[in-house]
Amino acid sequence: MITLAELNAADETQFVVLLDGSYEHSPWIAERAWAMRPFNSLPQLKRVLVEVVRDADHEAQLGLIRAHPEITGKSMPTQTRTAESINAQAKAGLSNCTTEEFSQLQRMNTDYNTTFGFPFILALRGPRNTSLNKAEIIATFERRLNNHPDFERAECLRNIHRIAEIRLNDKFGYETTLGNDVWDWSERLSHFSDPGYAERGELSVTYLTDAHRACAARLAHWMRTDCGFDSAEIDAVGNVVGVYHGSDPKAKRLLTGSHYDTVRNGGKYDGRLGIFVPMICVRELHRQGRRLPYAIEVVGFSEEEGQRYKAVFLGSGALTGTFNPAWLDQKDVDGITMRAAMEHAGHCPDDIEKLKRDANHYLGFVEVHIEQGPVLNALDLPLGVVTSINGSARFLGTIQGVASHAGTTPMGSRRDAATAAAEFALYVEKRAAAVPDLVATVGMLAVPNGSNNVVPGRCNFSLDVRATSDAVRDSCAADIANELAQICQRRGLSFTLEETMVAAAAPSAPAWQKRWEAAVKAQGLPVFQMPSGAGHDAMKLHEIMPQAMLFMRGLNAGISHNPLEAITNDDTELCVRAFLNLLDQLATELS
Amino acid sequence: MITLAELNAADETQFVVLLDGSYEHSPWIAERAWAMRPFNSLPQLKRVLVEVVRDADHEAQLGLIRAHPEITGKSMPTQTRTAESINAQAKAGLSNCTTEEFSQLQRMNTDYNTTFGFPFILALRGPRNTSLNKAEIIATFERRLNNHPDFERAECLRNIHRIAEIRLNDKFGYETTLGNDVWDWSERLSHFSDPGYAERGELSVTYLTDAHRACAARLAHWMRTDCGFDSAEIDAVGNVVGVYHGSDPKAKRLLTGSHYDTVRNGGKYDGRLGIFVPMICVRELHRQGRRLPYAIEVVGFSEEEGQRYKAVFLGSGALTGTFNPAWLDQKDVDGITMRAAMEHAGHCPDDIEKLKRDANHYLGFVEVHIEQGPVLNALDLPLGVVTSINGSARFLGTIQGVASHAGTTPMGSRRDAATAAAEFALYVEKRAAAVPDLVATVGMLAVPNGSNNVVPGRCNFSLDVRATSDAVRDSCAADIANELAQICQRRGLSFTLEETMVAAAAPSAPAWQKRWEAAVKAQGLPVFQMPSGAGHDAMKLHEIMPQAMLFMRGLNAGISHNPLEAITNDDTELCVRAFLNLLDQLATELS
Repeated sequence: MITLAELNAADETQFVVLLDGSYEHSPWIAERAWAMRPFNSLPQLKRVLVEVVRDADHEAQLGLIRAHPEITGKSMPTQTRTAESINAQAKAGLSNCTTEEFSQLQRMNTDYNTTFGFPFILALRGPRNTSLNKAEIIATFERRLNNHPDFERAECLRNIHRIAEIRLNDKFGYETTLGNDVWDWSERLSHFSDPGYAERGELSVTYLTDAHRACAARLAHWMRTDCGFDSAEIDAVGNVVGVYHGSDPKAKRLLTGSHYDTVRNGGKYDGRLGIFVPMICVRELHRQGRRLPYAIEVVGFSEEEGQRYKAVFLGSGALTGTFNPAWLDQKDVDGITMRAAMEHAGHCPDDIEKLKRDANHYLGFVEVHIEQGPVLNALDLPLGVVTSINGSARFLGTIQGVASHAGTTPMGSRRDAATAAAEFALYVEKRAAAVPDLVATVGMLAVPNGSNNVVPGRCNFSLDVRATSDAVRDSCAADIANELAQICQRRGLSFTLEETMVAAAAPSAPAWQKRWEAAVKAQGLPVFQMPSGAGHDAMKLHEIMPQAMLFMRGLNAGISHNPLEAITNDDTELCVRAFLNLLDQLATELS
Repeated sequence: MITLAELNAADETQFVVLLDGSYEHSPWIAERAWAMRPFNSLPQLKRVLVEVVRDADHEAQLGLIRAHPEITGKSMPTQTRTAESINAQAKAGLSNCTTEEFSQLQRMNTDYNTTFGFPFILALRGPRNTSLNKAEIIATFERRLNNHPDFERAECLRNIHRIAEIRLNDKFGYETTLGNDVWDWSERLSHFSDPGYAERGELSVTYLTDAHRACAARLAHWMRTDCGFDSAEIDAVGNVVGVYHGSDPKAKRLLTGSHYDTVRNGGKYDGRLGIFVPMICVRELHRQGRRLPYAIEVVGFSEEEGQRYKAVFLGSGALTGTFNPAWLDQKDVDGITMRAAMEHAGHCPDDIEKLKRDANHYLGFVEVHIEQGPVLNALDLPLGVVTSINGSARFLGTIQGVASHAGTTPMGSRRDAATAAAEFALYVEKRAAAVPDLVATVGMLAVPNGSNNVVPGRCNFSLDVRATSDAVRDSCAADIANELAQICQRRGLSFTLEETMVAAAAPSAPAWQKRWEAAVKAQGLPVFQMPSGAGHDAMKLHEIMPQAMLFMRGLNAGISHNPLEAITNDDTELCVRAFLNLLDQLATELS
């Protein structure tokens, strides 16, 4: 065990010795980090080491990757491997592979090295000294073999940083108790899943199914018994509402939370992280017997994903008074109306309108959420502060040309709907790329009944535009529509473009965004501002009170709505600590 | 009635008077044509008038279109309409419209004028003083309302030229007896159609169905009784083979013909024109009691379209010895093998190999075919001489990227398969357009399971490349494959590109192409050389003897494999006269 004080006091040689074993056979990383002393926190040290590798040249990065052994039981002189590496591979069960597993790993190692020119690196250890098992390792290996070389090089470096993080935690005796507890709750809640998914080990929790109701009961139970909330109830729309009073029982409340429903075959953290993180914070306050000069209301929103019915934000919409009673007559695929589903669950739909919150009783709304995108992962940053939930607009369009014989129609005589759509898609890409935090996507693109030997007479497409402000979004959409008209005019085609959905941007309230920034900075991390491209419950609360969100890094390039959605307990620990910091800031401001 | 001699001798004023009424209220056309005297044939005069309009400025062309009345029964002072126009509209039944038809025409006229700024023009008269009926007129009107303004302006001018052609025929007493007879045969043969199509008035004649066998019987009958062929037999593969001996019964033969099967819901002229035109020529020779120093063998090929079985060129392939006996075991959608279908029709599959022709007994092969493309129609040319049947290659491909959230994935972090495919499609278009007579088409293009809010992770496409030579085709395909690799490399994507079909180019035999050119020139028409983008029976005969093709204009932008496929009796007359000219040339050469 070493301390930050020891490290900060060390000369360069000592410094390198103290950090030996964190980055495999690569003392140059510690050497370069030495100049960046002193370090106020372990997360800050980790970040500096990440930046040293990031700023190193390509060859040095490749050298770092190649300094690692392959993930395999193949016999290798032990002196070339660090003890840490041997332990990690043994723990994963790789030291007693079957013949099949061994040869599969051999083949994958060969393929991987041939394709990429460096060995496959994967961090094996999880929270509480657990490890990925052989099956998980082999599945990840197979999947990563299909990645692009640029991505795989970065992914290896990310895994190396994660390996180093775990080794540094050991060295410094750094505990991630809070993060581990959130991890454990996420695992336990993921055991509830809808019929048809549960059997395959997939996670699906849609509105008011048995699994959904079990999740609500479990959340309320944990709030009451594990965390010490003063009350934890399931309301008429299925929200789990926990309240931890302030020192004055009539004090205003901080509202926070996220949703506990999931998409079908989704991930364990989407939504739920934003319930568990404030729950852990309340648990810590309760353990300390501490009351703040404001109350905390944590809501597990019952519905955000729009999976069972064609309506979204049922939970947060009830709080803002925008739950539409007409939705109650909607039927799910089995013909069960929303009203019947509610009554079956013992809820009284008529009481939903009573759930509307009076904003005067609240300080504001904050929400923690997994990023669901690749940005933080690519930047090796655990946390990001949201500047705005993007305004979005969706369109469906068709370009109409003239179908004609691919052999007999000269290039100059064609009215090809697909090449026009191609021009359109490239303009969309270019127009969006020219403006930071603007994205535009042609997600659907198809020549209906296309044939090898027919010049496309028609091409259907979708367009999705999102920006941090409605003005930026609308300007982009207008330019795109204008370009489409010009393309079709020039090519002698006709088109339709119909707006199917529009949602206003929800910029973060500046004062709340600043609190998140200070909370992130307090962890020794750089402040990174980013928009939210996806919609969140905070969008709804934005309608009635100030709001701001904190994003946490997702692994696997930030994949979400997918079982590969993943987090680390270390990131979660930082997220909880940032939330606690925000609570402290607010307490200071109000006292 | 006037004569070309009178017209050639007229001064400008007389000239304009003589041609008055051919182009509605537009004496400027005749005025400008006067300088181009003398005219050796009516087709030449017609061509000059077309060129005058073509060379006129945009406003003059619009003036010509606007000089025409709308197609409607609406009351209009008769002095503003020419007698010809009133007669034509009355003949079509437009003078006694129902209230519904009248108001439909009114609405379409308003829509058309609003969209295009000029009235809808349609030539109503067909062969033998027939007329389009009201239903045909209304259907055409509806269809043309959807066209692009540029196309519609040209289509109105084309109809004006067709109206003028019919009026000039009347003025000059020009008969199109040969063309009319081909027209009539085409109509009568189109009454045979497969079950499921016949009931809907659609044309479908697939291999060895009852309709197909009836067509063969009818062709053989016409050859023998109407045309005076010395023999006309149906061979083992279903070809109808008619022979008209030369003056020496042992003289070599000119082989000609085309296919009588059709695609499903196809046109009346695709293939069949190339049987009827030489049949009429033989009939004329026979009527004149004339024998040439060579024999003529006209073959109605039984199968070219590959509709019933997954094999093509069954008929012409039998003549070149490339009929594959393995095809006999193929089954159609009803499970009937080709062998069973043949035996049911009384054919002996074992005799197919005996159908192989010995090239030493033949002078060569010529084939007349409807163009099946827009080129001649756009150039207002009745006939075109084929330089080569294009070599073609087909590919299927996939671009693999990474599907990701359309809202949360920044533009710079995307691996969008669809925008890569868009770049690819535009390169294909540009690369082909840079080389004359080269075409390349991305006919299939689709993001499988594409979603509005997902960056496309995959895009499937087809590629079809055709060129007058295999070298030009292969060079284009290689550049395209190379560009695809570069696009994917730059964008961090992977791809597949698999060649699924390749067919060699069949360049026309120079001596035979020259004969077609002389035959076209002899009609007073300009010689226009063009490749064939589609495959034809001549491709097969190319394997064993010299060949050359003559193309005839298709109306409706050259649409084919479609009931809208159309020709004029005037074009057909020219086609027959060109064929007769070729026969004469050959007779002179061999005598």
